[in-house]
Amino acid sequence: MNIILFEKNELADDCVVLRDHRAKHIVKVLQSKTGDSLRVGMLDGNIGEARVVSVKRKFPFVVELSVCLTGLPDPPPAIDLLLALPRPIMLKRILSQVTALGVDTIHLVNANRVEKSFWDAGLLEEEEYRPHLIHGLEQAVDTRLPKIRIHRHFRPFAEDYLPELASHYSSLLLAHPSAEQKLSQCLSGTPENILYAVGPEGGWVDFEVDKLLTAGMQVFTMGNRILKVDTAVVAIHSRISQEMERE
Amino acid sequence: MNIILFEKNELADDCVVLRDHRAKHIVKVLQSKTGDSLRVGMLDGNIGEARVVSVKRKFPFVVELSVCLTGLPDPPPAIDLLLALPRPIMLKRILSQVTALGVDTIHLVNANRVEKSFWDAGLLEEEEYRPHLIHGLEQAVDTRLPKIRIHRHFRPFAEDYLPELASHYSSLLLAHPSAEQKLSQCLSGTPENILYAVGPEGGWVDFEVDKLLTAGMQVFTMGNRILKVDTAVVAIHSRISQEMERE
Repeated sequence: MNIILFEKNELADDCVVLRDHRAKHIVKVLQSKTGDSLRVGMLDGNIGEARVVSVKRKFPFVVELSVCLTGLPDPPPAIDLLLALPRPIMLKRILSQVTALGVDTIHLVNANRVEKSFWDAGLLEEEEYRPHLIHGLEQAVDTRLPKIRIHRHFRPFAEDYLPELASHYSSLLLAHPSAEQKLSQCLSGTPENILYAVGPEGGWVDFEVDKLLTAGMQVFTMGNRILKVDTAVVAIHSRISQEMERE
Repeated sequence: MNIILFEKNELADDCVVLRDHRAKHIVKVLQSKTGDSLRVGMLDGNIGEARVVSVKRKFPFVVELSVCLTGLPDPPPAIDLLLALPRPIMLKRILSQVTALGVDTIHLVNANRVEKSFWDAGLLEEEEYRPHLIHGLEQAVDTRLPKIRIHRHFRPFAEDYLPELASHYSSLLLAHPSAEQKLSQCLSGTPENILYAVGPEGGWVDFEVDKLLTAGMQVFTMGNRILKVDTAVVAIHSRISQEMERE
């Protein structure tokens, strides 16, 4: 936890009182004392400093902070993710990791090789997935929660939603083993905003690849090595970031 | 499991008999039948095809393969990793992920912020960590096991071992928040082989950074976002691969 984040409704008269895992973190890990300063931020708001007003060091822990917010954190890279719904335990990790890397919107979509049971996971409820996004923000020192969009049916997503969405991106990228172009060859100039797609374990089926290409996506190759979904999400994000930072 | 890997001593007269999780995978996931072909490889050896000679489909599963090895898989990228020893559960995942991405040697080193208990983990014995490397190879379709080097004392590693090692690399790279140069600015031309360093959660202490720089490492910035160790290992590897593939 590299920043203590709180909800807007937790702030009253520039004060926040923490009684949960954040209080425990301040007591046990940071070992903060009255008068110490901490980096804090309001979810979807500004970051700043807080002074520790009081600490109850014994369980149940209570920490009172006096907060001074100063400005927005640096914007995350303009990268969105289109992800075939992975199994819940992997989705949790991906949500945290890609939020830490910086993402604006995550589209979770069905695919032929997505197990039906994955759609029954409670994790797709906002109150369930939100903590994993916050975990990523606490890691990366950011306050901007990524938006989650859930598409339970591939075909209407690919035929109706994606073509409209596509017009908002400078590139839409799909890693595919049969592609010949490298990522850098797909991008001309400095790309402004990018959507990248990662399929299910076992990959998209041909029908899905066709639909995604028709909707405006471009294939590129990451080489011959086959990566697990969670590795691919981070690896492709990093390669795209690297290209976007190029001058 | 995108390739079935076996040990050299499992091969006798071009035949391999499997009775463990690999047999289960062939029966349950691949649902292979007698006469089917499978992609196989010998650890630290060639890859090729195998024909299923016989299958016992009930527990305990047994699969007999007739193997024809044809050649080495593509070489992995010439990237080595210097990693401050992470907690065992994270190390397992990192070993699999970085093996899948492709790495030649992984140096595990002590650091000020490495918890002493991590060194007591059985995972540092070859028979314990080897399955996680094999897991990465099975994912990426490779046979070359990365080499693991364990350095329990930072100072002799940084003062004696690393300066000698450094002469073998075209670049030695250390991601650091205070750096100003981007990765692409650190590399001139197409780098041949690279060692990159990832510190412990909380980072290297100043003394360690000084020693690593003295030994020949260069700092670069990944931006302001702080990444967890497992995310950083994949993210930096991917950015370096991206630069190495550039023409």
